[in-house]
Amino acid sequence: MSDSDSGGRDIAVAVVDAETPGNVGTIARGMKNFGLSELLLVDPPELDPDGEAYGFAGSAREDVLPNAREVTLDHLVENYHTVGCTAVTNENATKHVRYPFKTPRELADSLRSVEADTCIVFGRESSGLNNDELARLDELCAIPASAEYPVLNLGQAATILLYELRELTIADDQLPEITDRADERAIEGLHDQFADFLVAVGHPEEKQAKSGRLWRRLLGRAHPTGREVRTLRGLFRRASEQLRDEQ
Amino acid sequence: MSDSDSGGRDIAVAVVDAETPGNVGTIARGMKNFGLSELLLVDPPELDPDGEAYGFAGSAREDVLPNAREVTLDHLVENYHTVGCTAVTNENATKHVRYPFKTPRELADSLRSVEADTCIVFGRESSGLNNDELARLDELCAIPASAEYPVLNLGQAATILLYELRELTIADDQLPEITDRADERAIEGLHDQFADFLVAVGHPEEKQAKSGRLWRRLLGRAHPTGREVRTLRGLFRRASEQLRDEQ
Repeated sequence: MSDSDSGGRDIAVAVVDAETPGNVGTIARGMKNFGLSELLLVDPPELDPDGEAYGFAGSAREDVLPNAREVTLDHLVENYHTVGCTAVTNENATKHVRYPFKTPRELADSLRSVEADTCIVFGRESSGLNNDELARLDELCAIPASAEYPVLNLGQAATILLYELRELTIADDQLPEITDRADERAIEGLHDQFADFLVAVGHPEEKQAKSGRLWRRLLGRAHPTGREVRTLRGLFRRASEQLRDEQ
Repeated sequence: MSDSDSGGRDIAVAVVDAETPGNVGTIARGMKNFGLSELLLVDPPELDPDGEAYGFAGSAREDVLPNAREVTLDHLVENYHTVGCTAVTNENATKHVRYPFKTPRELADSLRSVEADTCIVFGRESSGLNNDELARLDELCAIPASAEYPVLNLGQAATILLYELRELTIADDQLPEITDRADERAIEGLHDQFADFLVAVGHPEEKQAKSGRLWRRLLGRAHPTGREVRTLRGLFRRASEQLRDEQ
């Protein structure tokens, strides 16, 4: 297991017998989006640099996809803790090829404390991993989906797995911290200002307390930022002043 | 909001100005996989029944895709609680077009108690939703991804949103309950059997307790099924019997 430049952990992804180059490109892009880099291909289709694999790979065409290695299933079994992905599970414990399994979230939780080189293994578009292949892998993962149509496209299934593993593989995501939540004093100041606004606008006195509670519930659910609170407080203050000037 | 046949809640999905029919097909398939059915298209590309949209839609070519409706952004704003998806957020609260936002999981949690008709809105492949479009939508959602390459493919981004909303939209998933977790008495029985096996196999007496603890830790992490425990217990019993017969 090597750390990527961003400091996250690298988990390998393998695709067995992919039938369409486009899905390999989609998987490569998803890997780069979620901080993974090691793509292993068992019996891959030809990946033409002018074809769909590279067309679908986004900026992963520059690294993940050209660095993909062709390997055997034996190589995966011998060198990695392997996780086979399948939409089709056994109903119960009477057969162990497809049971028990983890969901993607359970898998991410369980891999958190595992230091082994790990490889997530996907199968062919038409029929996934077959029983002989699954029987050789260490554990299973299945994505919960509609009972009416649970079979995901290969690229979409891989995207979900990569997304769920992100907390292991991404050191830093692109999102800023939302650090501007208003503090309680500022929110109370806005409530006071709103109460004054109700008076200034001539809202019937017997309804003021009720309207104040309505406003408190609304803000309480919205978890406003400091800036939102300051802006609204200023607006209500100015409105109240102007309303009183008009009188 | 209408309930689908499976009993889950229907959340609408809208794509504004999609550029490639294939992504519309991918989104339709993902919707069907996760129990959604209402697809709304603003300025869509032509969806040729023999083209990529239908080619990528899986069995959603039978319902979600042909039932898609062409609408305007005005229609979405007027009729739905709208959630705009974007990979590009503002750094802080100085601008409100792209701030604050929820992650997909936070969005799913917050929609749990909301009864409004809700529509998840995605933008064009090349540049997403623009500021004018986002400014009209009610709230924002951003997928945490690698800071180095956070921009997901449209179809992949939609798949992740649909996956995270599944607990709202799917009444029943395809996965069986794993109801066969072994009970503690059965596991203790296996531990007793293993201890007896250590004796029968002639494991040094001073190491037996330590090896027993090693085995307890291993099983403890694996959360074995009843069947696994019964099978192993039977194997160790038979091995112990045969080892003693040989003596």
